[in-house]
Amino acid sequence: MDAQLAQLFDFLRFPSISTDPSCRDDVSACGQWLYEKFLSIGLNAQVHGTPGHPVIFARSRPVPNRATVLIYGHYDVQPADPLDLWTSPPFEPRLADGIITARGAADNKGQIMAHILGVEALLAAGGDLPVNVLFVVEGEEEIGSPNLAAFLTEHAAELKCDVVIISDSTMIGPGVPTLTYGLRGIGCIEVRVTGPAIDLHSGIYGGAVQNPITALARLLSTLHDSAGRIAVPGFCDAVEPMLDWERNAWASLPLNEARLLEITGAPALVGEPGYRPLERMWARPTMEINGIGGGYQGEGTKTVIPHSAFAKLTFRLVPRQTAAEAIAQVVEHLRKNVPRGVQVEIIEGHRGDPYITDPYSGFGKAAQRALTGTFQRPVAMIREGGSIPIVQSFKDILGVDTLLLGLALPDCRAHSPNENFPVANFEAGIHLNQALLKEIGKMQ
Amino acid sequence: MDAQLAQLFDFLRFPSISTDPSCRDDVSACGQWLYEKFLSIGLNAQVHGTPGHPVIFARSRPVPNRATVLIYGHYDVQPADPLDLWTSPPFEPRLADGIITARGAADNKGQIMAHILGVEALLAAGGDLPVNVLFVVEGEEEIGSPNLAAFLTEHAAELKCDVVIISDSTMIGPGVPTLTYGLRGIGCIEVRVTGPAIDLHSGIYGGAVQNPITALARLLSTLHDSAGRIAVPGFCDAVEPMLDWERNAWASLPLNEARLLEITGAPALVGEPGYRPLERMWARPTMEINGIGGGYQGEGTKTVIPHSAFAKLTFRLVPRQTAAEAIAQVVEHLRKNVPRGVQVEIIEGHRGDPYITDPYSGFGKAAQRALTGTFQRPVAMIREGGSIPIVQSFKDILGVDTLLLGLALPDCRAHSPNENFPVANFEAGIHLNQALLKEIGKMQ
Repeated sequence: MDAQLAQLFDFLRFPSISTDPSCRDDVSACGQWLYEKFLSIGLNAQVHGTPGHPVIFARSRPVPNRATVLIYGHYDVQPADPLDLWTSPPFEPRLADGIITARGAADNKGQIMAHILGVEALLAAGGDLPVNVLFVVEGEEEIGSPNLAAFLTEHAAELKCDVVIISDSTMIGPGVPTLTYGLRGIGCIEVRVTGPAIDLHSGIYGGAVQNPITALARLLSTLHDSAGRIAVPGFCDAVEPMLDWERNAWASLPLNEARLLEITGAPALVGEPGYRPLERMWARPTMEINGIGGGYQGEGTKTVIPHSAFAKLTFRLVPRQTAAEAIAQVVEHLRKNVPRGVQVEIIEGHRGDPYITDPYSGFGKAAQRALTGTFQRPVAMIREGGSIPIVQSFKDILGVDTLLLGLALPDCRAHSPNENFPVANFEAGIHLNQALLKEIGKMQ
Repeated sequence: MDAQLAQLFDFLRFPSISTDPSCRDDVSACGQWLYEKFLSIGLNAQVHGTPGHPVIFARSRPVPNRATVLIYGHYDVQPADPLDLWTSPPFEPRLADGIITARGAADNKGQIMAHILGVEALLAAGGDLPVNVLFVVEGEEEIGSPNLAAFLTEHAAELKCDVVIISDSTMIGPGVPTLTYGLRGIGCIEVRVTGPAIDLHSGIYGGAVQNPITALARLLSTLHDSAGRIAVPGFCDAVEPMLDWERNAWASLPLNEARLLEITGAPALVGEPGYRPLERMWARPTMEINGIGGGYQGEGTKTVIPHSAFAKLTFRLVPRQTAAEAIAQVVEHLRKNVPRGVQVEIIEGHRGDPYITDPYSGFGKAAQRALTGTFQRPVAMIREGGSIPIVQSFKDILGVDTLLLGLALPDCRAHSPNENFPVANFEAGIHLNQALLKEIGKMQ
């Protein structure tokens, strides 16, 4: 383990902050280090330049009539600031009490390194692999993977594979093997309401004109009914009901209501009637207002009817909704409900379809066996409420499903100071990789 | 006229900006100049120190069995910035095309000076006045008159009078004599909604908890019904209906719907059904949201469920509503309608009761005669939608009504760059003062 940890620490020492132009050479050096690591374990490797940071591609010697597994990860990291909140320098990895602390320890260097070292171990043990392995490790995940889809499209023939494996998500609890088989999609819009040409004195003119904030509040209040259901006509029609096994499986997860109250600090767990919180987070759509602004926001009182007000909305989508249809439904609903006396502009943002794969498919069952074998506990079968657009790219461009085998814990502090990753999870990841490739190999 | 204009220009040259500590000596010098002006026309005058800027008090020699008229005004002005938008320096008064341009020209130096010069002319002509005259000219109106109520209370015996005259409001149009006999009251509250302990990822946690912005929007949407009526139970119960003559008088004012659309730049005039815009502005209560904020307000999208959101509300009140009861009704209504899963804090701000006086009282009719005589046109009898707390202080402390005889035009740019006041209005004001005092004198 010491030699493996030493390699991870070398990987973690690169300040490969993709968003920071001053780190460009560090990102590049980190990619080069990874390229050399792939070569050193006997894989064929290439550095693929992009308009941004390079994609490192590696593959084992292709053997016909074997399944091909694509393992995706990223070697770029989030910025480390605020630096003064770190207990040790972010790019000087530290090991204490079995916990590795460094920027990128969990997200994603620790997790992708576990896969690389798993493949290295298999190759070292037998000189061959049970499956064909492709690695795609990009340097731009933290800035939205702007060049990944083009890379996948351009190299689709070389990247032909049967399944994608990603360890860039969380385990639901310490030691709980977790298979994530569904993600929500997303639609984003901004609603801008304008009324009078300028801010008006609300004493002098109050009563003459529609107040844009009042109009916006009334418009936003039409998005849900009084019970908390989304009230946009047709919005939920395409939603595929949860399966019984999902409800049952989720009901016994350690992420229970008490834990959710603790994590969120909310006064209560509230939402669409008829569903439990995890069901609402993973298998039901939402309509959230992420921001609102208008008029005077300073201290005290300023008596204005503001010229305008705005709200930023995102809605999360579940299988079989599509982002295109959902956005169209919301826009139509808002336009139909604009109060008199104001004008409304709607600006569309990014979008992504929901994703789901069958965890009881052949690959899903292989993953379950590998997880159980590695952690010696039943697998938590979950969906996630967030969106991972890369997964949709693999589906759309390469036509393959993705298995998400998270190795980070919920308190890994990804994107925050003192990001950390337990050595136990790193070690488990190395074993999981080997078990998974063997299980997939046995499927043939 | 030249000599009178010269005096106004002297008055205007003081940068008597009450809110600016660096102008403290200028404010003081301006008050001293005024004190000397009162002395020079033969009035008994005093400079009354306050914890802030002095009140200048002046009175004619009291004659028994005569009505006593208190004329209120202020010698402080608003700051002049942004200076680069002025076409001439704000404290170097300029006369061009019959328009005086300077900070304070309309608000309030030009208007109060017209009254002083009117009294001077009466005294110069006959050595006596038709009524007893008191002047109270304060130096803190632009910062909310923090010391005026204490001054009135302390000097209530000396200030005993029959009616208060204020020219610190607007004429409804050029050459249209205007008597303002009603003002709306005000209540202010801020509503703060809190949900989760921190901003949450809206993908991961969306569906588990109530969104504070959604809750706030729903709460605010309960303030009105779908037709635009205030929906707070009991809120409008105390409202005194307009009288027929008011509806008829207002219907023929030059401030018509076309003009209101032009002034406000709003797409439409919208409000409570069954009332015309001026009726809604002057004789109906309102419930305005002056500001709202919560969550992410920057460019693009940030997928959070915010910790909190807030809205700033003011409501305008009309006779016989009281601010105390109205605030209590709104607070009770909001508390009853708090959506589940959030906590709401309500912070009360300042308040003021509505004001109304009978324009057909003896004093009201005297003012109408003076206005008609001076301007040779029928008087516009209006209320104002805003609140002037001083008027309520005169009512509460001295027990007298106030007649508001505005001399500034709607486009006088009070508080803005290039504040202006027509010489014609200044001159009319001097005549109006004399006519008014004579009319009130005849009432005895």
